[in-house]
Amino acid sequence: MSLGAEILQGDRRALARALTLVESDPHAADDIIAEVYPHTGHGVVVGITGAPGVGKSTLVDRLAGQFLARGRKVGILAVDPSSPFTGGALLGDRVRMEGRGSDVFMRSLATRGHLGGLARATPRAIQLLQAFGKDLILLETVGAGQSEVDVMGFADTTIIVVVPGLGDDVQAFKAGILEIGDIFVVNKSDRPGADQTMRELRQMLHLGPQRAWMPPVLAAQAQQDVGVSEIADAILRHSEVRLTDPEQQQRRMQEAERLVRDALAEQLVRRVVNQSQAKGRWHEVLTEVAERRLDPAGAAKALHLDQE
Amino acid sequence: MSLGAEILQGDRRALARALTLVESDPHAADDIIAEVYPHTGHGVVVGITGAPGVGKSTLVDRLAGQFLARGRKVGILAVDPSSPFTGGALLGDRVRMEGRGSDVFMRSLATRGHLGGLARATPRAIQLLQAFGKDLILLETVGAGQSEVDVMGFADTTIIVVVPGLGDDVQAFKAGILEIGDIFVVNKSDRPGADQTMRELRQMLHLGPQRAWMPPVLAAQAQQDVGVSEIADAILRHSEVRLTDPEQQQRRMQEAERLVRDALAEQLVRRVVNQSQAKGRWHEVLTEVAERRLDPAGAAKALHLDQE
Repeated sequence: MSLGAEILQGDRRALARALTLVESDPHAADDIIAEVYPHTGHGVVVGITGAPGVGKSTLVDRLAGQFLARGRKVGILAVDPSSPFTGGALLGDRVRMEGRGSDVFMRSLATRGHLGGLARATPRAIQLLQAFGKDLILLETVGAGQSEVDVMGFADTTIIVVVPGLGDDVQAFKAGILEIGDIFVVNKSDRPGADQTMRELRQMLHLGPQRAWMPPVLAAQAQQDVGVSEIADAILRHSEVRLTDPEQQQRRMQEAERLVRDALAEQLVRRVVNQSQAKGRWHEVLTEVAERRLDPAGAAKALHLDQE
Repeated sequence: MSLGAEILQGDRRALARALTLVESDPHAADDIIAEVYPHTGHGVVVGITGAPGVGKSTLVDRLAGQFLARGRKVGILAVDPSSPFTGGALLGDRVRMEGRGSDVFMRSLATRGHLGGLARATPRAIQLLQAFGKDLILLETVGAGQSEVDVMGFADTTIIVVVPGLGDDVQAFKAGILEIGDIFVVNKSDRPGADQTMRELRQMLHLGPQRAWMPPVLAAQAQQDVGVSEIADAILRHSEVRLTDPEQQQRRMQEAERLVRDALAEQLVRRVVNQSQAKGRWHEVLTEVAERRLDPAGAAKALHLDQE
């Protein structure tokens, strides 16, 4: 039986093998993806992001517990951009969920050194988990750079987690946060300043553009399982509103365009490079570019015109 | 006169216009890059990275002053991945260097919303500054995610800035930091714990692989201009060592390969998309992918086979 068929039948080891393929090379699993693709796209993908130390991992654990109790099939993808400043932090996560047995499938994704690799691996990993039968996927990022914003682009619902006492930071992250957050969580809300942080966030959101969905600001103490049920409710409410959102169809088309453009780039570049290597031209052209005798765009043009 | 010729003659406004083109669309300036490309690749590109609040901007200012005093032509590129957690922080930077007049060219680069846009814009911005005559380019990043690691890939010499009292964080960033740092700076070294942080960093570096260049760990108080001259010395020493490094030629070839692959992807995808739009096929195929009737790789294959 093919790996794709095994995943569709719910074989965990087949899923793990396919995820490893995707992680090592986003295109290595193209055949598997092609096979399972009709069985993807359902359910909800929830992105959870925020600065290090705000308690994202704990919140993800508690949310997984909430949704399991509600009969949902939960998958967790912890996306680790392997930043030098956060690397290694996921080892603990990997074992974290084991106590839950086979009810939750948890996986870390890291593609160190692949430029843009995570942005390509993440949608494929989501598709594999959906084909496996998961209808609620929690997408957790480590860190808070552009990679994370890119990764959140694959989520249907994005949760921004903060802690009390951000002070000036609230102003600092004002710029981009309103656009990507669907739900805001002030975690560790027993700490001093929680009320003020919630008030400031709400004020910022009211200054932003009016939207059909007004992002709620919720208090939580994930460690004590306080406020988590309300977050789960908000996620489900948001996914209902989303279904009637006229922009939803447009979003799906944009996602499709991104995936098709990426696949085109991979296939077309591979072909030109292979042919040019076969002719012994590739190394020669790169040398000319390295020595500044030819510019990169000119080199690219010469390589593909050569083959027509 | 062409914009490229104006840049080569040292016209600041032409340089600013070309940088704006590169920022809005990395490929918009392909003709200009082609024209100036033979005049690029010289001098040193110094990347400066570290977590928010460690004093990167101040250090960059002081280093610029040091190199100006030594007769170097200095350019500064502040790369802002527009993270929601750091966005807006650069407004101050933009005006920061104005007091220096025309001796330093300072520019912020931000390409919000373009997936991988910064990784494409940065090498082009460096090339434009080199064509303009800058032989020492300080590349500063805001934040510390995968984007920053990607951007540092364009630097000849990478400086990692930390502050005392990191504690467990030193362990946390152990994973990736040894590989990308050429010089480590413990800034704000008058704070308690500076000696311990320096000792810990040195221990970590000694545990790493033996290299021809052993990264120095330097103390600094950038605000008071203390220790900055020693950092400038280390940068110049590293660039001398680099010139005799047998891996240097290999690095130039890898950089050339990355630039050529990127140009190939852009040109080939644009052509297929244009032709498919002209035939009225593009929207149809994207719809099939969005509705899960066709997988992205299959769609890409159908689109380019269609045109042969």
